[in-house]
Amino acid sequence: MRKVLCRLCPTVFVPPHRSIFPRFFMSSEKGEKLEHPPWSQPSEGNDKGVTVFNSLTGVKNRFLPQEGNQINWYACGPTVYSSAHLGHARAYITFDIIRRILEDYFGYDINYVMNITDVDDKIIFRARRTYLFDEYCANVDKLEFSKVVSDIDEGFSICRSKLLESIGQIKEELKTTPKKQILDKTTILKGEQLKLKNLDKHLLSFRQSSKKGSSELSEILVSGRDYLSELLDHRKGADVRDLSIFKKHSEKYEKEFLEDMRALNIRDADSLTRVTEYIPQIIKFVEKLISNGFAYESNGSVYFDIAAFRAKHPYPRLRPNQLGNVKLLNEGEGSIKPEGVEKKNPIDFALWKKSKGGEPWWESPWAQGRPGWHIECSTMASHLLGSVLDIHSGGEDLCFPHHDNEMAQSEAFYEEIGLKQWVNYFLHAGHLGIDGLKMAKSLKNFITIRQALESSTPRQVRICFLMQSWHKNMDYSTAALQSAASKDKQLQEFFLNLKIAIRRNGLLSASPQGWNSEDTKLNVEILRVQSAVHKSLRDNFDYPLAIKLLFELQNSTNTYLRGETKTLLLRKVGNYLTRMLRIFGVIDDNPMGFPSQSSEPEACLAPFLDLFCSFRDQIREGSKQKDSSNFSQIVSSTQTLLSTLTEDQKSSQGTNDASESKEFREKRENIVSALEEYTSQVLDGVEKGKDPSYYLQISDFVRDNVMPKHGVRMEDPTSSFQIGSVWKLANAETLLREQREKQAQRKEQEILKINRKIKDLTKQFEKFSTAERPFEEQFSLKYPDKEFTRFDEEHLPSHIRVGDKEEAISSKQRKKHQKDLRVFMKSKENSKGPEFLSHLSEEISKLRSNLSEIS
Amino acid sequence: MRKVLCRLCPTVFVPPHRSIFPRFFMSSEKGEKLEHPPWSQPSEGNDKGVTVFNSLTGVKNRFLPQEGNQINWYACGPTVYSSAHLGHARAYITFDIIRRILEDYFGYDINYVMNITDVDDKIIFRARRTYLFDEYCANVDKLEFSKVVSDIDEGFSICRSKLLESIGQIKEELKTTPKKQILDKTTILKGEQLKLKNLDKHLLSFRQSSKKGSSELSEILVSGRDYLSELLDHRKGADVRDLSIFKKHSEKYEKEFLEDMRALNIRDADSLTRVTEYIPQIIKFVEKLISNGFAYESNGSVYFDIAAFRAKHPYPRLRPNQLGNVKLLNEGEGSIKPEGVEKKNPIDFALWKKSKGGEPWWESPWAQGRPGWHIECSTMASHLLGSVLDIHSGGEDLCFPHHDNEMAQSEAFYEEIGLKQWVNYFLHAGHLGIDGLKMAKSLKNFITIRQALESSTPRQVRICFLMQSWHKNMDYSTAALQSAASKDKQLQEFFLNLKIAIRRNGLLSASPQGWNSEDTKLNVEILRVQSAVHKSLRDNFDYPLAIKLLFELQNSTNTYLRGETKTLLLRKVGNYLTRMLRIFGVIDDNPMGFPSQSSEPEACLAPFLDLFCSFRDQIREGSKQKDSSNFSQIVSSTQTLLSTLTEDQKSSQGTNDASESKEFREKRENIVSALEEYTSQVLDGVEKGKDPSYYLQISDFVRDNVMPKHGVRMEDPTSSFQIGSVWKLANAETLLREQREKQAQRKEQEILKINRKIKDLTKQFEKFSTAERPFEEQFSLKYPDKEFTRFDEEHLPSHIRVGDKEEAISSKQRKKHQKDLRVFMKSKENSKGPEFLSHLSEEISKLRSNLSEIS
Repeated sequence: MRKVLCRLCPTVFVPPHRSIFPRFFMSSEKGEKLEHPPWSQPSEGNDKGVTVFNSLTGVKNRFLPQEGNQINWYACGPTVYSSAHLGHARAYITFDIIRRILEDYFGYDINYVMNITDVDDKIIFRARRTYLFDEYCANVDKLEFSKVVSDIDEGFSICRSKLLESIGQIKEELKTTPKKQILDKTTILKGEQLKLKNLDKHLLSFRQSSKKGSSELSEILVSGRDYLSELLDHRKGADVRDLSIFKKHSEKYEKEFLEDMRALNIRDADSLTRVTEYIPQIIKFVEKLISNGFAYESNGSVYFDIAAFRAKHPYPRLRPNQLGNVKLLNEGEGSIKPEGVEKKNPIDFALWKKSKGGEPWWESPWAQGRPGWHIECSTMASHLLGSVLDIHSGGEDLCFPHHDNEMAQSEAFYEEIGLKQWVNYFLHAGHLGIDGLKMAKSLKNFITIRQALESSTPRQVRICFLMQSWHKNMDYSTAALQSAASKDKQLQEFFLNLKIAIRRNGLLSASPQGWNSEDTKLNVEILRVQSAVHKSLRDNFDYPLAIKLLFELQNSTNTYLRGETKTLLLRKVGNYLTRMLRIFGVIDDNPMGFPSQSSEPEACLAPFLDLFCSFRDQIREGSKQKDSSNFSQIVSSTQTLLSTLTEDQKSSQGTNDASESKEFREKRENIVSALEEYTSQVLDGVEKGKDPSYYLQISDFVRDNVMPKHGVRMEDPTSSFQIGSVWKLANAETLLREQREKQAQRKEQEILKINRKIKDLTKQFEKFSTAERPFEEQFSLKYPDKEFTRFDEEHLPSHIRVGDKEEAISSKQRKKHQKDLRVFMKSKENSKGPEFLSHLSEEISKLRSNLSEIS
Repeated sequence: MRKVLCRLCPTVFVPPHRSIFPRFFMSSEKGEKLEHPPWSQPSEGNDKGVTVFNSLTGVKNRFLPQEGNQINWYACGPTVYSSAHLGHARAYITFDIIRRILEDYFGYDINYVMNITDVDDKIIFRARRTYLFDEYCANVDKLEFSKVVSDIDEGFSICRSKLLESIGQIKEELKTTPKKQILDKTTILKGEQLKLKNLDKHLLSFRQSSKKGSSELSEILVSGRDYLSELLDHRKGADVRDLSIFKKHSEKYEKEFLEDMRALNIRDADSLTRVTEYIPQIIKFVEKLISNGFAYESNGSVYFDIAAFRAKHPYPRLRPNQLGNVKLLNEGEGSIKPEGVEKKNPIDFALWKKSKGGEPWWESPWAQGRPGWHIECSTMASHLLGSVLDIHSGGEDLCFPHHDNEMAQSEAFYEEIGLKQWVNYFLHAGHLGIDGLKMAKSLKNFITIRQALESSTPRQVRICFLMQSWHKNMDYSTAALQSAASKDKQLQEFFLNLKIAIRRNGLLSASPQGWNSEDTKLNVEILRVQSAVHKSLRDNFDYPLAIKLLFELQNSTNTYLRGETKTLLLRKVGNYLTRMLRIFGVIDDNPMGFPSQSSEPEACLAPFLDLFCSFRDQIREGSKQKDSSNFSQIVSSTQTLLSTLTEDQKSSQGTNDASESKEFREKRENIVSALEEYTSQVLDGVEKGKDPSYYLQISDFVRDNVMPKHGVRMEDPTSSFQIGSVWKLANAETLLREQREKQAQRKEQEILKINRKIKDLTKQFEKFSTAERPFEEQFSLKYPDKEFTRFDEEHLPSHIRVGDKEEAISSKQRKKHQKDLRVFMKSKENSKGPEFLSHLSEEISKLRSNLSEIS
């Protein structure tokens, strides 16, 4: 897997290896459970034995819809201010899986509404900044380099001092923080410190590049964009008044979000609700809250009156112990505060915010303004789904204050009808962590969905999340993605192998169907897995367990595949796994309507490919046995079979509508031509009396270069256990890529082999050329660190230089040299003379030129 | 729809039109209900609120499996002695639908076992006769024509006297039949009389053809086959001893049966049990029955002891009042009676039949023999599914004695464990009638599945059966099939129209998503239909009602489609209908495993086809306005857009595995070339200053001749309400066929038009050529029945012949002739002279030659 680079913050690398450690504590943990206000169990709808972890109780509750088979589901959707990241993907994939399980496995009918938050402080900031930055850049020709640098520098300062201020404040708070909140607070501090560190790194590299003068103005603008935008917004943000600027921004990211969801194979909502399309309904909702006595106006803004509400209703339901958490409340309120507001209580939250310059606005009974964050969900859910939701879902971080405030609003709204429980089941997906921190935009530690899909397929991403419990936090890691990729590959191969075994078994009517003990054993395993999967999915959608069970069934079936098999049992396994994987969204949803092409490609291609493989197997087998005597006979019988098959196919066509599509006919025709070409090459070989190697070569060529183009992978048997070659249908592009990779591998091996040979030959050459030399020289070569000054008539060294003097060789040493000499003489005897040497040298240069040709 | 010919009985035609009238009486009717022995309601398994009509109680019972989510289902399969007919198809499709509803809608896991009866008296007869007939024909060269004719004649006699005997016997019985059984008995008599009528008809035509001597020997053999076989079996049947003869016969029809099931999109069983593969288990089962005291041996055969059984258990459970029905019991025993048997009681039935010559046999503790009919099901079901079945299914005619005897055997077998109820739910599919009789092999009033599939698609057959309650009888009719075909077409068009509306709506992110009252209305309708469908399927699988509801939703959506639409709602409708139609088996099952091609073809082709249509619309609009001035500009902007699209497509390729398949790339490339060709034709027209008609012609050509080849149907707007042309993807073969039909229609219209013109011109020619003649002649022509003998100088008739005399014209008459003359003179004035006449005559002959060219 490639290193993943954060797009907005190019200096931060995500380390390539991380261990995955799902954190097993629940987000609403220790003690809190007791503090949840009472929850009432629905009792009217269809009970299918499902239990679900409900954030409203902190435990698993029996799941029943309000009425019949229908489920009302409101899902918190995206705030469309920038690209969605893997953390978002996890939440959306999680709820997609649960929705599919409820719809396709348990058979509930679901009405699924998702909101799009397209009015929000973050959108306002981002849209304004993008607009101001673009405006700045539009005049780039008139800008001086130094002016731009100093503007960006100023932007850095603004950001830096904001961060420092925040860090100081948190440190101050930590001194008085109660013990059990210290962990949370420290995590926040850590986040702020990471931001500061990133900023300083960024600043450093910016200063270097801007000083050197080697950078272009455009490069400076790109790298300093965020900080320059901060400055521009600081200076001119309040002057941005055109509503379309905000609309354009949110539309762009909504489009991107929907494309991402589609790419991840996430089912469409039945309705998307945009805040900007429900302003009149929101205003009415707020008016009702005021008239019910749960909200008040303050200087053109409207606030929810927590004290008034708490006098009659429990609050907060989801996180009772967060009541006074002003930090979280403030985050929920957004960073743009209306002017001149006086809240009755600091924990009151905004329902309507009066807009100042640089903010979008709509007319209202109070002031020109816009909705607070929480009010949209209460309004839109009520508008589309009525007064009680069966399921409300969102990421874990939305619990407080967002979801608690939504519930307060809705209960306040439905005061008259005495609504006690707006949401029956509140589902919160665990978050995706990275380095122990939550993956988040603000921490710049995220990987966008698009980045992730550059190196992983959507199926791999989904399998990765399927292996983790939905309501528990998990850490992101490339190891987890790699493991998912390998599981994906395993499943693919498994299905292909099932299909091969089924084809090999031939017609049902021509093979025994009575069950032996192996068949019974596999059937018992199927029943066991089906029951256990059923139990696991009823138990709070425990899909990691279900996936584990499916892989167990896969393994048992692999064992079963080693013996004789029953086609019907293989189909049962294959169809069951396909069904479950489709329910989990691993296999794509069915297209809507009637299929535009009829049968499976396998069905119409199988007889042709079987014939192809059988012909090729016979040719290869004969070549290996060095016996090509019956090849022309094999060719002729194959040709006869082929023409029979083709006739059959023609006569079965046109009898009814469901005849095969043009695409598959073309594919079949390609395969037939390839086989014809191949048989004629074999015949050609027979006529010309070719070597067995010729046939093996053309057979390899067919496998490696011809069939992949037609989307067919041929696999030769890898052990004597296998009977013959097999074929698998796959995407032609994938096969060609596999082929290229295989060829590259083969080339590498070839290069290695030649290099090894060159090394060998060079060694030989050195050995033999040395043996040809005078013995005196050979002594000097053997002892390169000694200098022999004189030799005797036996060619043995007699004197040696020591320092600047000459010494006689000791008798002990002389004996050793006599041994050396015997070796030299032996070598000289064995030496093959200068002709052999020149032969060796030729060989070596031949190999070297081979090598350069290959690479 | 074509006339359907019975294959085995070519002189019997099935009348093409019959009204469908489901018979609303149940097979187990009036009074019987009270006599069913007590039934105990399972209570442990998953309750999903389903009720089912249970033949064991004659009422609807709450459906629960024995345990958990698993259903054990044993289905009575075919006796493979000849081709399956539509009556069989109805039963198998019915249970396929119920199985899919339980599996895919209610989410039960089903273990589905189906038996194949491959030892049976009918198989023995058929196999033997086929074998003997083939043997006879093998020596056809040595046979004399007259000998063959006399053999066949003898065969006729044998069959005829058997039938006469049977008819006489039934008539005799009728005299003493109790009143309430008279209807049944009369139906049987009617059947036998039909057989006799058919035989006599057949005999007559055979005698004629054999006398004339105009027939070949081979023709005689084909038409007399059944009767000759009867004779041969009569003479030599007992000498047929080779087991493989029987095996070959059953294997052939098993293969055909399984192919038929596949063609009808019926799900595979999880296990097929052939009787011949379970002989040892059957013998053990019989031994146990003997040791339990419920069976006894008699001269090498073994019989079930009804009296002993009835002393402890109720019998018959399903049809209590059929206890003494020896006729049905005998039919159940098969037509081959073991020799030398003494039954304790005439209603005891065979468990093991001692075989004589001409019958297959296996060793046993009693005599060489073969299993009775009922024992196989008890044994094989126990072997694979254990001691209690959740569901046992079969055609209504199997109730008694087959299923009642199965139950008796199994309860007797499980005596020790005190089994009280072998089957919890016994499901019997209503039969398919034809002309008030059950469709049956013996009555030769059947249509084989293969015959039916020559004129209907499998989908149409299924839709036809889906419109009838599963447990009620129905009558076959071509009208019902035609109505199903039109429903099928309706659905197809509906899905295509949905897709067009979705494409027209464009991107979700660029269109409003807030719901108006029409959206809300449609959503309410969806929820209503979903709830009602859920209710209907729980109520004894009332799928005719469910189908009716789905069509209601389709109609409401068609209304909705006339206004502005929301894509998400359209998808919701489309996906829901697709899901339900898939559950009913109307849309094919998903292929096993991962798809070998990724996305829907629509997705990658849409932008290209949209561009194509928009270009073509502009060209057609311009041509109609007779303004081609901006055509070159339209061409150039289209070409620019096209190259942008092509670039986009290229750059989006190869980024991951899920890239489009080769097939769709080729399709897209074909569409691109077609568009390029079309634009260059337009440009060519502009350069050469062609007439507007030229552009309309090439635009029609593209629609009619080019695009169908690529699987694209272009439809021009048929009303001003529609905005532009639309495209639909479909099977290329279907489109080409549609195209041919359209062309044939057009040709017919063209011929009509020319004929009309010829008639007009001929009339004109006659009129003008008459006007040129002398007035005297014109008077004669005008009054062909009068003979004017003299004319005056004014050219008026003065005398007329009356009888053989001449009379003067009366003055009244003369006045009338003066009026005539004025008309003649007027015509002469208006006449355009001989040149015009020859012009007319030329025109006419030109048209005549056109006509002969076209036809």
